[in-house]
Amino acid sequence: MKPARAITLDELRERLRRFAAERDWEKYHSPKNLASALIVEAAELLERFQWLTEDESKSLPSAELAKVREELADVLIYLVRLADQLEIDLLEAAREKMEKNARKYPADKARGNSRKYSVL
Amino acid sequence: MKPARAITLDELRERLRRFAAERDWEKYHSPKNLASALIVEAAELLERFQWLTEDESKSLPSAELAKVREELADVLIYLVRLADQLEIDLLEAAREKMEKNARKYPADKARGNSRKYSVL
Amino acid sequence: MKPARAITLDELRERLRRFAAERDWEKYHSPKNLASALIVEAAELLERFQWLTEDESKSLPSAELAKVREELADVLIYLVRLADQLEIDLLEAAREKMEKNARKYPADKARGNSRKYSVL
Amino acid sequence: MKPARAITLDELRERLRRFAAERDWEKYHSPKNLASALIVEAAELLERFQWLTEDESKSLPSAELAKVREELADVLIYLVRLADQLEIDLLEAAREKMEKNARKYPADKARGNSRKYSVL
Repeated sequence: MKPARAITLDELRERLRRFAAERDWEKYHSPKNLASALIVEAAELLERFQWLTEDESKSLPSAELAKVREELADVLIYLVRLADQLEIDLLEAAREKMEKNARKYPADKARGNSRKYSVL
Repeated sequence: MKPARAITLDELRERLRRFAAERDWEKYHSPKNLASALIVEAAELLERFQWLTEDESKSLPSAELAKVREELADVLIYLVRLADQLEIDLLEAAREKMEKNARKYPADKARGNSRKYSVL
Repeated sequence: MKPARAITLDELRERLRRFAAERDWEKYHSPKNLASALIVEAAELLERFQWLTEDESKSLPSAELAKVREELADVLIYLVRLADQLEIDLLEAAREKMEKNARKYPADKARGNSRKYSVL
Repeated sequence: MKPARAITLDELRERLRRFAAERDWEKYHSPKNLASALIVEAAELLERFQWLTEDESKSLPSAELAKVREELADVLIYLVRLADQLEIDLLEAAREKMEKNARKYPADKARGNSRKYSVL
């Protein structure tokens, strides 16, 4: 058995295309539906944290961390699939957004105050 | 002015670390809080589609598409930041999940039926 | 066995207080946590509809409708509990919001256009 | 000017019907769409709390509380509208769910442990 090797975001996108095509699921994958599926997965992720304190959320037991890891994967999967359907380059979009955020929240003014500055 | 070049998921993660550190925002970035921020962004994304038909969601006007693109970027940003705080390799997690999905939804049985098989 | 009788929103609020007190769960019920629990339930509701067409969502099979009904109940339960913790009168808040909406979306201008007017 | 008087859930439902009818918005109000709108409002609510500590979420400044109150109203509005479209009696559904919860989480066993018992 050969070891699994790391994949890239592009490869993940290709696998998702193939996965949907082989199952004839493309018809379900409108952007509207995928945006719903994405938030449903984001909620399954949040559910793991909802009754924890912030500190507890930083040191999850390993069985719990494994579940969280799987939910993170689901979010990425739908995000990549949705971006693909909309022909959006996710990484390029994120790069541009980070530049916009840097202008919007200059480091010297935003220091330590996340209340006013609610974006990352 | 030199042209912007594409970034990788690893580089995005590094930029987010720096961004948070420079603003002293790390204290806000508990997994619990980041999971909340992630779903809030996922909702801003869904909001663009909520009153559209599925067909309309496939052919967005370009001004609308630009907004959707920014929301996708926000989701990716929080997803990468959360994975970083939990020391989870997003792409590896997604690769493993896709293998699990392939076993769970064999192509010949799942064909055309996304009702029963609700994961991508 | 006497028939169950209808309850009011006020009675539901009282039952929820008692339910939490008897289980010593009040410590988990910060507004922050309850707002998370609320959106998690809203996602479980949305999940029932995510792959359906709009038309299909209007005529659910009865087994499916029973599940949706339970999810609606969960949303109401957390909503009432959260409002109680914040000492907010839900119905009064909704009444005021409806008046605000009536001013914001005058019937003659908003007719048939939910794209621009994204609130109910 | 006569004082506003309290409304009931039934009256709210009637007002929402009228509001949608007068604006010709019924066509947008499929259960699928309303479930999306509901979670979008639940996210706007969560957004107010996402960077706060649990303690901070218990003592909001009054301007902030006013905004939270309005978001709670929006959630209730969509919840009532969705239940109406599905012909579900919200309060009756919640009453039944509370009885189910009481059997599922007996007070003596569930005491103080919201981790295992993740429903209210």
